[in-house]
Amino acid sequence: MKILLIGATGTIGKAIATELKDHDVLAVGNSSGDYQVDLNDNVSIEALFDKTGKVDAVISTAGSIVFAPVKDLTEAQYNEAVAGKLTNHLNLFRIAQNYITEGGSFTLTSGDLAQNPMPGGAAVSMVNGALDSFAKAAALETGKALRVNTVSPHFVKETMEMMGMDSTSGISAADTAKAYRHAVESTESGQIFDVPNYV
Amino acid sequence: MKILLIGATGTIGKAIATELKDHDVLAVGNSSGDYQVDLNDNVSIEALFDKTGKVDAVISTAGSIVFAPVKDLTEAQYNEAVAGKLTNHLNLFRIAQNYITEGGSFTLTSGDLAQNPMPGGAAVSMVNGALDSFAKAAALETGKALRVNTVSPHFVKETMEMMGMDSTSGISAADTAKAYRHAVESTESGQIFDVPNYV
Ligand SMILES: NC(=O)c1ccc[n+]([C@@H]2O[C@H](COP(=O)([O-])OP(=O)(O)OC[C@H]3O[C@@H](n4cnc5c(N)ncnc54)[C@H](OP(=O)(O)O)[C@@H]3O)[C@@H](O)[C@H]2O)c1
Ligand SMILES: NC(=O)c1ccc[n+]([C@@H]2O[C@H](COP(=O)([O-])OP(=O)(O)OC[C@H]3O[C@@H](n4cnc5c(N)ncnc54)[C@H](OP(=O)(O)O)[C@@H]3O)[C@@H](O)[C@H]2O)c1
Repeated sequence: MKILLIGATGTIGKAIATELKDHDVLAVGNSSGDYQVDLNDNVSIEALFDKTGKVDAVISTAGSIVFAPVKDLTEAQYNEAVAGKLTNHLNLFRIAQNYITEGGSFTLTSGDLAQNPMPGGAAVSMVNGALDSFAKAAALETGKALRVNTVSPHFVKETMEMMGMDSTSGISAADTAKAYRHAVESTESGQIFDVPNYV
Repeated sequence: MKILLIGATGTIGKAIATELKDHDVLAVGNSSGDYQVDLNDNVSIEALFDKTGKVDAVISTAGSIVFAPVKDLTEAQYNEAVAGKLTNHLNLFRIAQNYITEGGSFTLTSGDLAQNPMPGGAAVSMVNGALDSFAKAAALETGKALRVNTVSPHFVKETMEMMGMDSTSGISAADTAKAYRHAVESTESGQIFDVPNYV
């Protein structure tokens, strides 16, 4: 399968590229990778698909999030959270649906905080919940022509280490990547693939 | 209890005002009501709380939504959906938390489409899912000082009639309002109150 992987230069994205190396993975980053895109710029998204042509699957692990105590979150931070992970992915879906082959798949990344929050994560829970519900609803309309799902990662071991946290409860990026294989290779649609179920 | 009800002039809001008439309900609309507010204008929200002073509960059923097939949704419509019901409520929470008495409650309105989508409702599912996850996450941090919940209405009979639909499966606005009484009078927090459970 020809798989467009946006966010391929990130912690989870790199592991997905490795996991899916039996496929033809086009690795897209923001500043590096085989291709570059700025998900917050329509012209850039259109230009990416102009270069790649049709693909069998689009996966995105791209974007940025905002952590802050809910009592301190500013209007600017809420808007940053929405722009960093939500509206850019709605926009990616809007454009990408025209470039995915019949029966292909579109996979977004939400996160466990949508259902199981942690202090400081309200803006993250919010965008993750939005993407989970959006994917489920979109899938209802696209039917068999286009499968739409989210993968919902839990805290990744490498990320916890990077943040100086105790990482014993973390799930490795390599294990997290297995849920994306399921998203791409299964026939399911409208699902939230909770990462621990695929490890 | 002194309850600030934003959206009091709408289909569900009017029924909540009736349901909660044993309390001191301050009815807020956009263009009419005892007080007016534009939730998309910070100055207007601040001015509202300046007038009302501290309240024991804030309920919002205000805002607007966007229905359209997911293949047709434009960038402008996604942004309209986000502005119409999501970012304005994040902003309302940001300001309102300073005007609710210790142990009070903040109740937002999401909707069943977050979990059970319908064709044409992807943008609605998206904002509803965002609010459900946000409220749950916010509640974790505000603890006993401020209860935060969503009420999740199903299709309202009066709304279905207004849209010329067969309304036999609808839940009346009066029955829908009972979930808001529960939100205000219970001690629960971080919950999605699914309307059929309170009818
Ligand atoms: N890591 C975790 O513990 C964890 C847990 C739950 C959920 N998640 C979610 O999983 C996703 C991936 O996490 P991660 O840890 O792998 O993130 P990451 O390491 O920060 O990687 C982010 C990726 O997004 C790209 N990117 C950033 N802004 C972009 C833009 N405007 N346009 C296009 N690409 C952009 C980056 O490209 P460059 O490298 O070129 O800048 C990079 O490839 C996120 O949505 C995150 O919320 C992660
Ligand atoms: N009705 C249903 O079947 C149903 C089902 C599931 C979920 N819901 C959700 O429940 C909520 C209420 O629904 P509804 O049918 O009662 O809505 P509605 O009849 O359209 O009422 C909307 C209310 O919001 C106010 N409003 C609109 N824009 C505003 C703004 N910028 N600032 C402040 N107030 C504003 C309106 O004030 P004015 O009257 O002054 O304009 C009105 O009071 C919505 O979030 C909806 O998505 C409804």
